Amino acid sequence: MDSINLSEKYTQFNEHWTPKIIAELNDQYVKLAKVQGEMIWHSHEGEDELFVVKKGTLIMDFRDRTVEIGPGEILVIPKGVEHRPRTNGEEVWLMLIEPKSTKHTGAIEHEMTVNDQEWI
Amino acid sequence: MDSINLSEKYTQFNEHWTPKIIAELNDQYVKLAKVQGEMIWHSHEGEDELFVVKKGTLIMDFRDRTVEIGPGEILVIPKGVEHRPRTNGEEVWLMLIEPKSTKHTGAIEHEMTVNDQEWI
Repeated sequence: MDSINLSEKYTQFNEHWTPKIIAELNDQYVKLAKVQGEMIWHSHEGEDELFVVKKGTLIMDFRDRTVEIGPGEILVIPKGVEHRPRTNGEEVWLMLIEPKSTKHTGAIEHEMTVNDQEWI
Repeated sequence: MDSINLSEKYTQFNEHWTPKIIAELNDQYVKLAKVQGEMIWHSHEGEDELFVVKKGTLIMDFRDRTVEIGPGEILVIPKGVEHRPRTNGEEVWLMLIEPKSTKHTGAIEHEMTVNDQEWI
């Protein structure tokens, strides 16, 4: 039950698309991620996912449209909805909240899939 | 599935200690609150609660110690743990994530209890 400083946590890693766990609540993890470039299309069958943008602008493609999420903005991806996060070249810093059971790339096994997520 | 701008949402209310719902995921609500002064001691029997401080410094009393949470910091209150949020005179802006079933003041009915929480 200590406060967690996000800026300090972001200094602890530099890899892209490899979320790090910083807290847990109600069977979910709170994670930080640095991302740049493009993720693969995926969905999470039973889990909603919250994106909070801390730095930069995240671009979220859906099959029928695209949404931009800037610093201080949030977006919920409802379960089952296909999405592809990407950036416009810059590095983007995210905070994510999703169930512990959530696989990084949904049902898809891919070279970007991270199976053993790390606490920092 | 639109992005939600937190700064814009904070302009929509001024009451203290009356969280407003801005999103939902996994049977939880994402809420914004403005707080100033002191809440009552309470706990949530079955629900963990996430505090994200957006502006100001929140002071969280536990029965055995006190934790300060500044801007860009987060704190999880585990289920069952008695706590009392308060501020040092200034107004503090929060984002909260907690199960939909979470009562504002835990099991305690009090004049500060808000039973019908509002979406903004």
